[in-house]
Amino acid sequence: MNAYLQPSRCGCIDIHTHVVPHHFPAYVGNRPNVPWPSMRDAQPCHRHVVISDKVYRTVSSQAWDLDVRRGDMDRQGVKRHVLSPMPELLSYWLDAEDGAMLSRYLNETLADMVVAAPDRFSALGAAPLQNMDHAIRELEFAVGTLGLSGIEVGSNVGGVPIGDPRFWPFFEAAEACGAAIFVHPLRTAGMDRLVGPASLEQIVAFPGEIGLAAASIITGGLLSRFPRLRIALSHGGGAIQTLLPRMQHAWECQHALREAIPVAPVDAARTLYYDDLLYSATAIRALIETVGDDRVMMGTDYPFAIMDTDPVARVASLGLSDAVQDALRWRNAARWLDLA
Amino acid sequence: MNAYLQPSRCGCIDIHTHVVPHHFPAYVGNRPNVPWPSMRDAQPCHRHVVISDKVYRTVSSQAWDLDVRRGDMDRQGVKRHVLSPMPELLSYWLDAEDGAMLSRYLNETLADMVVAAPDRFSALGAAPLQNMDHAIRELEFAVGTLGLSGIEVGSNVGGVPIGDPRFWPFFEAAEACGAAIFVHPLRTAGMDRLVGPASLEQIVAFPGEIGLAAASIITGGLLSRFPRLRIALSHGGGAIQTLLPRMQHAWECQHALREAIPVAPVDAARTLYYDDLLYSATAIRALIETVGDDRVMMGTDYPFAIMDTDPVARVASLGLSDAVQDALRWRNAARWLDLA
Repeated sequence: MNAYLQPSRCGCIDIHTHVVPHHFPAYVGNRPNVPWPSMRDAQPCHRHVVISDKVYRTVSSQAWDLDVRRGDMDRQGVKRHVLSPMPELLSYWLDAEDGAMLSRYLNETLADMVVAAPDRFSALGAAPLQNMDHAIRELEFAVGTLGLSGIEVGSNVGGVPIGDPRFWPFFEAAEACGAAIFVHPLRTAGMDRLVGPASLEQIVAFPGEIGLAAASIITGGLLSRFPRLRIALSHGGGAIQTLLPRMQHAWECQHALREAIPVAPVDAARTLYYDDLLYSATAIRALIETVGDDRVMMGTDYPFAIMDTDPVARVASLGLSDAVQDALRWRNAARWLDLA
Repeated sequence: MNAYLQPSRCGCIDIHTHVVPHHFPAYVGNRPNVPWPSMRDAQPCHRHVVISDKVYRTVSSQAWDLDVRRGDMDRQGVKRHVLSPMPELLSYWLDAEDGAMLSRYLNETLADMVVAAPDRFSALGAAPLQNMDHAIRELEFAVGTLGLSGIEVGSNVGGVPIGDPRFWPFFEAAEACGAAIFVHPLRTAGMDRLVGPASLEQIVAFPGEIGLAAASIITGGLLSRFPRLRIALSHGGGAIQTLLPRMQHAWECQHALREAIPVAPVDAARTLYYDDLLYSATAIRALIETVGDDRVMMGTDYPFAIMDTDPVARVASLGLSDAVQDALRWRNAARWLDLA
């Protein structure tokens, strides 16, 4: 058994933390008006992420500086961060070759971070899912050559939900190389259904979007096709815990659905992983009741504004046994990441 | 106190049941290619709802025949059905005058049903929300003249979420005349995010859509504007129970959101009503924990394929006190409907 699987050595794992590199290389392709990201100085300890000449987001040095990050981790009692790119950087809207170049830069940046402190960091890279050949090549490089733990994927790619069969070649390769998959909301559905400030996209639309992504994985049969895949849903799977009983009820009473979906939705959902980023003991407990206590992991959205700032205490607040608390804090994550 | 508020007289109230009329009048307007509904015979005891020359849905006589319905109610131990149109009939995509004609027919049909058995039926009518003047006129006719209990509204009108301020004149009139409001998913967001059979719209997309509608009511400030409004969300508010803690967390830590949204999201959510149509004891209990046991009511989606067939037993399965079971089975509904 790997030393990391000893609880005292492993400590708590936060599986949902994001990275923005300190800088990006200049765009060297030959296409015009490419939304290639760049960084620009902002207030002290902050930089602007600039995309298409607009500030997409202003991020603090927590996003790239490992010393700052380790200080925060120590204060929170977190031993390991699983790093993944700020989702907008997945850039599925770039031409495939440009997307592959950007993914390569992100993956090398993440690999450098892991190498700097392998006892504190694991990483999930990027793959240009706008093109299956490029995506598979980058997956294999990121996991096989760089040693990343897996890939962060968007909930949809250009509006096509991640459970769509057109992505099966990528997932087949992910299963083959043992990559962990982390699904994150991106360019959400329902943007025209919001009333209020622009920040409602992340606040109100993310949970529905990740719920739809989870549903597409279940109804598209991805896990019956590739049963060894280890897929985790961010934001606690969002709406999936309220969709699932309805899907199960319909599956049980509608013959056509049983024909189309080979595995009962509730059983399929219990083969996925979920972070616990639901901001409520009631909601996290309901998720555990729905998918099982071997499926839920600690995750915070560090270092962004909406992050859960005390994940270890969050788990303690749920009223669970020590064994289940251990499962949420590190054991399930170690299994998902294949740290053994 | 009205006799209906005595539990023994009132009995259980199913607040979420739909009606399709046996037939529709021919279209008498002068516009071409209007998607005006009609009915056509199908297999015995069934009729096709035909819209734009296509069968939209085949429904059984439960949808219009009160004797059949009362038989089902008696078998389920349900004393009162709250009748509302099959949501597609709300027809917000018709020209406003045509929409007003169709709403009028639906409302008169519903009123006839209530008059036939006022001890068994209440009804929520239709209002053509594509035009505020017509909608308010029809609301006032339906509630003031016909005596209906309120209005069923879609989660959005032509893609505009129901919490948008452009609908405030309607809600102002609804508050003034004491109409109960029932929000139902319609033309859902996220249709491009589904993988699988067409029936997934209702199964997978409804909970997200009604969750977004609930969020729009909360973030748009509808209830601080019209605090005496009594609004119920169908399908248990769908995803709202997972959106809400995230909205609350963001509201507490982001100044701009507190400026834009005057009431804390959790507090606003506790002034809405919800049916219990979540198909899972875990999900219904989580809803009750989130919004309060004075806010949740029995609802089944009768007579459609996905309906909950034993609502009284569903409430019994939740492990609640007798007083709370009574609240879910009739007391909260009586308050929402203002049966007193």
